[in-house]
Amino acid sequence: MEKVRLGIVGCGIAARTLHLPALKKLSHLFEITAVTSRTKEHAEEFAEMVGNPRVFENYEDLLDSGLVDAVDLTLPVELNLPFIEKALQRGVHVICEKPISIDVETGKRVVRLAGNSDKTVYIAESFRHVPAFWKAKELIEEGKVGEPVYMNWQIWVGMDESNEYVHTDWRRNPKHVGGFLSDGGVHHVAAMRLILGEVEWVSAIVKDLSPLLGGMDFLSSIFEFENGVVGNYTVSYSLKGNDRFEIAGTKGRMEIFWDKIVLNGKEIEVHHEDSYQKEFEDFYRVITGEKKNDLGDPLEALKDLAFIEACVRSQGSRVSVSSLL
Amino acid sequence: MEKVRLGIVGCGIAARTLHLPALKKLSHLFEITAVTSRTKEHAEEFAEMVGNPRVFENYEDLLDSGLVDAVDLTLPVELNLPFIEKALQRGVHVICEKPISIDVETGKRVVRLAGNSDKTVYIAESFRHVPAFWKAKELIEEGKVGEPVYMNWQIWVGMDESNEYVHTDWRRNPKHVGGFLSDGGVHHVAAMRLILGEVEWVSAIVKDLSPLLGGMDFLSSIFEFENGVVGNYTVSYSLKGNDRFEIAGTKGRMEIFWDKIVLNGKEIEVHHEDSYQKEFEDFYRVITGEKKNDLGDPLEALKDLAFIEACVRSQGSRVSVSSLL
Repeated sequence: MEKVRLGIVGCGIAARTLHLPALKKLSHLFEITAVTSRTKEHAEEFAEMVGNPRVFENYEDLLDSGLVDAVDLTLPVELNLPFIEKALQRGVHVICEKPISIDVETGKRVVRLAGNSDKTVYIAESFRHVPAFWKAKELIEEGKVGEPVYMNWQIWVGMDESNEYVHTDWRRNPKHVGGFLSDGGVHHVAAMRLILGEVEWVSAIVKDLSPLLGGMDFLSSIFEFENGVVGNYTVSYSLKGNDRFEIAGTKGRMEIFWDKIVLNGKEIEVHHEDSYQKEFEDFYRVITGEKKNDLGDPLEALKDLAFIEACVRSQGSRVSVSSLL
Repeated sequence: MEKVRLGIVGCGIAARTLHLPALKKLSHLFEITAVTSRTKEHAEEFAEMVGNPRVFENYEDLLDSGLVDAVDLTLPVELNLPFIEKALQRGVHVICEKPISIDVETGKRVVRLAGNSDKTVYIAESFRHVPAFWKAKELIEEGKVGEPVYMNWQIWVGMDESNEYVHTDWRRNPKHVGGFLSDGGVHHVAAMRLILGEVEWVSAIVKDLSPLLGGMDFLSSIFEFENGVVGNYTVSYSLKGNDRFEIAGTKGRMEIFWDKIVLNGKEIEVHHEDSYQKEFEDFYRVITGEKKNDLGDPLEALKDLAFIEACVRSQGSRVSVSSLL
């Protein structure tokens, strides 16, 4: 099997703590041949952790080097669009961290760029690789809760001073819609859409509760899926608490955890795997032509972002999600 | 202490199972001197349970008999307004089961009638007499959860064939807004308003899920209190499940039960008393001039109903609650 030669672009927290451990387990599929980062120090430190691939002073040189088949972009969100565009111009595949872009309008440009290229643009959404969510979808389709009626997800991220992400420059002064609300929120929307399908409309309120976190940090919403299921999704990035993800149907209910589903009071274990590893494996299969890009499809990532942007715009009024697309 | 001579008007489920047990405990305050019911049989059965007060064939005769100082109205909701009006015309005090009326528009007429009379109109809202809700309010005011931020109440009433209320004629073909949504819902709104104050706006969706229950039977809402607390209130009258009533603040959270509050993981027991008994005691004190009618104030009951009517009208759009008042 031929290895994909990968350039790492941006050597921040996500690259170090999420992508690198996954790529190390996939050394039979990927070879990291080049790295670059705005902060040269970060690039050099990262290169050392990998085994000393070429360090480039800038992105363009990396792309032009002939050393990479694909780039892995983990950048401030506002750079996703221009960096994807440059890679495609040079015939280089892209895997890029979510959210797809700072807002739906610029996200649409990513979707168009990808549609006009024969190279892959894969938006890395780890929640589309979480087995528990696929299991929940399966159980619902098997009628295990009867007709699904209602979904409630409460998430208490509880970020404080000790959290690395809080201090990132581009997170302190977010250009991406809703700040943490889209940065973290597209994950949650991806899971909800995976399990219950497309969302027709949302009504929501967002707040800036914590001075520590840049931008908005609280969102509470009510919405309706196209299949008629009603949802409540509430998230606070500053408050601490126990998360709860429940789906109620006409004949039962389930609670969803990372490693299990409690269906009508009975536990069903689900093996929780490294979703970043699965993501890169999937990317490999897509760029080698083994499968379609269904899980990294930029349009899917755009729909996740559209939900959050609709929430941010809503101020309690009903907003059609598809009207943004 | 002089006993209040009470006429029972309507001898259905509420009169038999909720009011009569309370009144039996309060025989030092109230004497049931007269009863009437649309179904003569019901009136006679009820009279027998009480100790054979006078049974009247119709309401007007009961009012004109000179045997009653006050009437207790437990009637199909659409009769509240005309029956209250007739009592006041004859100088008779009224205690009347919630909801105040079938909708806010006619409810306003009850408020006006009460305002123009020197007799008391007391709308019986048992949830305003539940100690756990007052304890929750107290703990919040003491700052025990920091600044309150978010409230979530999920209620799964789970009514089925075996439930008496389901089969009542006026509940099967409801003239009152939202059917069960207002019939049961004003209780919940009374509790939420008691604990966290007035609600500024709501956005909600309502559904008719169960063919067994007349009218709508599912409501899910997002709303904001005037103090900025965000709420989610979801209720299904057909689906079964465990209720959950939680309030999260900047420094902690509480879960509210009938007989306890769990504050930051620690249980605080609350003595759960018969709220119907407390209601009648309060009514007695109001009509004997010992206290103001704060807990049975028709305007309070109108505000409870306005929340539900705003939810029914919303269809996902933002509705100002005060715009209905």
